[in-house]
Amino acid sequence: MNAPADARQRILAANEAAAGALRERFRRDGTLVLNLISSPGSGKTSLLEATVARLAHDLRIAVVEGDIATDRDAARIARLGVPAHQILTGGACHLDARQVEAALATAAWRPLDVLFVENVGNLICPTSYDLGEDFKVVLLSVTEGEDKPFKYPAIFARAEVCVITKSDLLPHVTFDLAEVLGQVRTLRPGGRILRTSIRSGEGLDEWCALVRERLAAKRTG
Amino acid sequence: MNAPADARQRILAANEAAAGALRERFRRDGTLVLNLISSPGSGKTSLLEATVARLAHDLRIAVVEGDIATDRDAARIARLGVPAHQILTGGACHLDARQVEAALATAAWRPLDVLFVENVGNLICPTSYDLGEDFKVVLLSVTEGEDKPFKYPAIFARAEVCVITKSDLLPHVTFDLAEVLGQVRTLRPGGRILRTSIRSGEGLDEWCALVRERLAAKRTG
Repeated sequence: MNAPADARQRILAANEAAAGALRERFRRDGTLVLNLISSPGSGKTSLLEATVARLAHDLRIAVVEGDIATDRDAARIARLGVPAHQILTGGACHLDARQVEAALATAAWRPLDVLFVENVGNLICPTSYDLGEDFKVVLLSVTEGEDKPFKYPAIFARAEVCVITKSDLLPHVTFDLAEVLGQVRTLRPGGRILRTSIRSGEGLDEWCALVRERLAAKRTG
Repeated sequence: MNAPADARQRILAANEAAAGALRERFRRDGTLVLNLISSPGSGKTSLLEATVARLAHDLRIAVVEGDIATDRDAARIARLGVPAHQILTGGACHLDARQVEAALATAAWRPLDVLFVENVGNLICPTSYDLGEDFKVVLLSVTEGEDKPFKYPAIFARAEVCVITKSDLLPHVTFDLAEVLGQVRTLRPGGRILRTSIRSGEGLDEWCALVRERLAAKRTG
């Protein structure tokens, strides 16, 4: 759904204002916030499950899930004993800052160390909506093909971290990893790229270390 | 991007009018039109390549490709000797009927037997935009997880045909095929579901037979 240009400008401006307020709140609370974005089925929820299993014993973590329909993702996270709140967007293809604000008010969580926001499965719409996060993370599974960064350049340019998922499937698919790395580095020079697999465990320690480093940096910076 | 409700209604009404004109044109020409919708990387272009290889020797086929950026998909099709036209949506997450109309005017193709429209990679936005097609086809790869039909119910309800792709990867992933079939049948009772693989060739003859049947039915009906 593309709104006329002036309506779109108003919507984005309102979102920026709400995102600014959220960012200030997260700064005061010392909460690191990550906005996870990918196609449906790239493995956002699976990465969060693995992350929670590794970090929740000493960090206060919560997850906000965005979906068109069903609360399956929040249920998957809650099963691990971590607070999770499902936002249903009612058809909208992305989360916005006011939805996150409302979710936080409803959930009434104590100040958190890390808040993960799993956006609606979509490489396009969530790109323009700041949620007050510290940084965006884009996920790309090795089954999706190596042409994707250049086909969806905005999100790969805006995400500070790119997580390649399902690396255990590399022997079974055609996926030119060097080509993908080249495209991502072109779109986001200096961005971090991690290669991961929930099945083999590849890259998960590195990913969790990155989260800890960024939390420490936020609190000392 | 969600427009205010009234703006959205105007946009959709204008699209309906353009789609109606396209549908009448395709009826006059006896052209069967399929609108292919899926997440990025589910295998739309690969399915079209395999389809063209099987049907283009005796059917007049053309392909309209929708993408945010790059003309890679149209180039892949054109390499097979079939006319292909790339629409770049400039950030929009779906094709609309007027873009297809403009593409047809630019391409100036002779009347076709089958026109395949490959929509922008997205399970959400393309759902509401009629392109004058005979029917929508939704693709879901076995790497995307079995929760997807219920998470993106609108497209699975509106697509007459659901193509499960990459079935050769079933031994390497966790994917409850029976669960997916149940969800799709709940959302679209009576819809066709095909299980396919470009690598093994599974289901491709059945898929091509379906296209031929529907073309014959359109011309006799």
